[in-house]
Amino acid sequence: MKKYNFGAGPCILPREVIEKTASAILDFNGIGLSIAEISHRSKDFQPVMDEAMALVKEVLNVPEGYSVLFLGGGASLEFCMIPFNFLVKKAGYLNTGVWAKKAMKEAKLFGEVVEVASSAGENYTYLPKNFDVPTDLDYLHVTTNNTIYGTEYHKDLDVPVRLIGDMSSDIFSRPVDVSKYDCIYGGAQKNLSMAGVTFIIIKDDVLGRVQREIPTMLDYRTHIKKGSMFNTPPVVPIYTALENLRWIKANGGVEAMEKLAKERADIVYGEIDRNKLFRGTVKCEEDRSYMNICFVLNDEYAELQDEFFKFATERGMVGIKGHRDVGGFRASCYNAMTVEGCKALVETMKEFEARH
Amino acid sequence: MKKYNFGAGPCILPREVIEKTASAILDFNGIGLSIAEISHRSKDFQPVMDEAMALVKEVLNVPEGYSVLFLGGGASLEFCMIPFNFLVKKAGYLNTGVWAKKAMKEAKLFGEVVEVASSAGENYTYLPKNFDVPTDLDYLHVTTNNTIYGTEYHKDLDVPVRLIGDMSSDIFSRPVDVSKYDCIYGGAQKNLSMAGVTFIIIKDDVLGRVQREIPTMLDYRTHIKKGSMFNTPPVVPIYTALENLRWIKANGGVEAMEKLAKERADIVYGEIDRNKLFRGTVKCEEDRSYMNICFVLNDEYAELQDEFFKFATERGMVGIKGHRDVGGFRASCYNAMTVEGCKALVETMKEFEARH
Repeated sequence: MKKYNFGAGPCILPREVIEKTASAILDFNGIGLSIAEISHRSKDFQPVMDEAMALVKEVLNVPEGYSVLFLGGGASLEFCMIPFNFLVKKAGYLNTGVWAKKAMKEAKLFGEVVEVASSAGENYTYLPKNFDVPTDLDYLHVTTNNTIYGTEYHKDLDVPVRLIGDMSSDIFSRPVDVSKYDCIYGGAQKNLSMAGVTFIIIKDDVLGRVQREIPTMLDYRTHIKKGSMFNTPPVVPIYTALENLRWIKANGGVEAMEKLAKERADIVYGEIDRNKLFRGTVKCEEDRSYMNICFVLNDEYAELQDEFFKFATERGMVGIKGHRDVGGFRASCYNAMTVEGCKALVETMKEFEARH
Repeated sequence: MKKYNFGAGPCILPREVIEKTASAILDFNGIGLSIAEISHRSKDFQPVMDEAMALVKEVLNVPEGYSVLFLGGGASLEFCMIPFNFLVKKAGYLNTGVWAKKAMKEAKLFGEVVEVASSAGENYTYLPKNFDVPTDLDYLHVTTNNTIYGTEYHKDLDVPVRLIGDMSSDIFSRPVDVSKYDCIYGGAQKNLSMAGVTFIIIKDDVLGRVQREIPTMLDYRTHIKKGSMFNTPPVVPIYTALENLRWIKANGGVEAMEKLAKERADIVYGEIDRNKLFRGTVKCEEDRSYMNICFVLNDEYAELQDEFFKFATERGMVGIKGHRDVGGFRASCYNAMTVEGCKALVETMKEFEARH
């Protein structure tokens, strides 16, 4: 049976990227060695790193003056690296979900933190808008897509301060105006690669303003200076990122990814709104994430929860259980999810409705 | 031509481990999904994490009261995590090479650091012995194998304080008395896995003594509490580690690995000592590393450097260029290096000698 992977992450990757990774693990570029066993400083690996960095810049149209890094540790490590490197006195955070809150928690160790806006009071079912931003912030931190709650800022915010964006789950799914940001970062394991590498796009000239001593590995300048090779980088996850970036470019870039994301989202949200059994969990239609589509059974059908999960699983739908903080179901539709996959999910929802 | 990978890391892995990794990337356990695209919280991945942790404990005979962690970031990140978590007032470091020095540098941000002994004055060509250890140290940090200089403590040190060991390049190559250590850590990319995961073996009850506030991701307690799943772990590198641990166990465990390491080292050092062209760089025979065998051309043959490198490369020897700090050649012989590989290197050295 064909499986459709709607998992929230680590998640679906293009089959071509998977196959190229497996092939490079057996024999990289025909050199008779595995990509897993070559030196990161070899003439075989350096072009991988160089091309991956260059493609991030090309695909996102990154302006001059920014560096791209591939580090280990995950976005959660960035939660403390951001204030270590950027928080001089006061930072603002938008509290739009669990991950935003975690990022904010780490910043509090380093200086004053202003919760500029929050949707915590309504279980993060909408995105704060029209909030006032103090102009004396070192930065405003935004989690552009909230994986757990299925909300997404589809456009870069217009605010009077510099932005730092956690784009773990929507990077490469739409064009981004990078010039608005001092830093964009995220775990790779949604739209970029397998788990194990973190991408960082960082404005070079904003570093060095903090006075505190920063451990070498937590100082972005270390990694910029060494081209992400201060220590051994996660070689294979970076290779997979390269193949995925090639795939994105070959398939029309982020403009095409955005178009496809909208098409998929229209198909699935359309069915959620039409189907008598289900409803979406996000309050405002404009806040609905294209990446993580959250829905629950209407109250009168609530007892069908387990039955639908089983029904969908039997039809090849993988990873559609909602996060425990929201309940219900979540169909994550990252770049590699096909329209066919979304139609198969809709078919499943229709069939299930017909039985009840 | 068959290639023999003598690279210092990322480096040779057992072919079986490479093949199983490639196979799991195409289809993990026949579930119709890649190991690269399944959730770390899925019922498919949890057994991988559990078995990998259990095998570290089994293979190294880890006593009760220790946890095993698999994190991202590399051993270089541990250089600051160690003092963050362990340095209350004063720590001792053995300065046995570049990596030891880097570890020491980070510790200085957190408290008093005593250089208990150093071989820096003689370019790290021997290992300090018979040094006095202050008894009021929170810990003594030792780099058990110095990859760049080819020195190795073949036995765990007897000192009057608790040890912390960076075993990045000799873990799983010999039995270790874990009970002597509060923490053993290292990058995986030598004897454990591909690059992208860091192993940590840590004594649970020694944590929590420091008063400082520790960022969540840098606090070992975070990861112990969550079984290395506080955030998304590097799934594929952990899977490769599991396959490698299975391979170590199936091949006789660390006792057999040590025997094999000695056999390989005897073969290569034997030839270095016999061959008129070469000499080893490490002063004391007992300090010679089994993992990284460093040698140079004798002064009267120094001009043959490039010629030998080319000659050896043409015969399939990969990664034998010495580190720039030592020069000459380095044949790294990790667990997966075969006796056959070492004999091929010796044959190459003999042939080259015959020409000169």
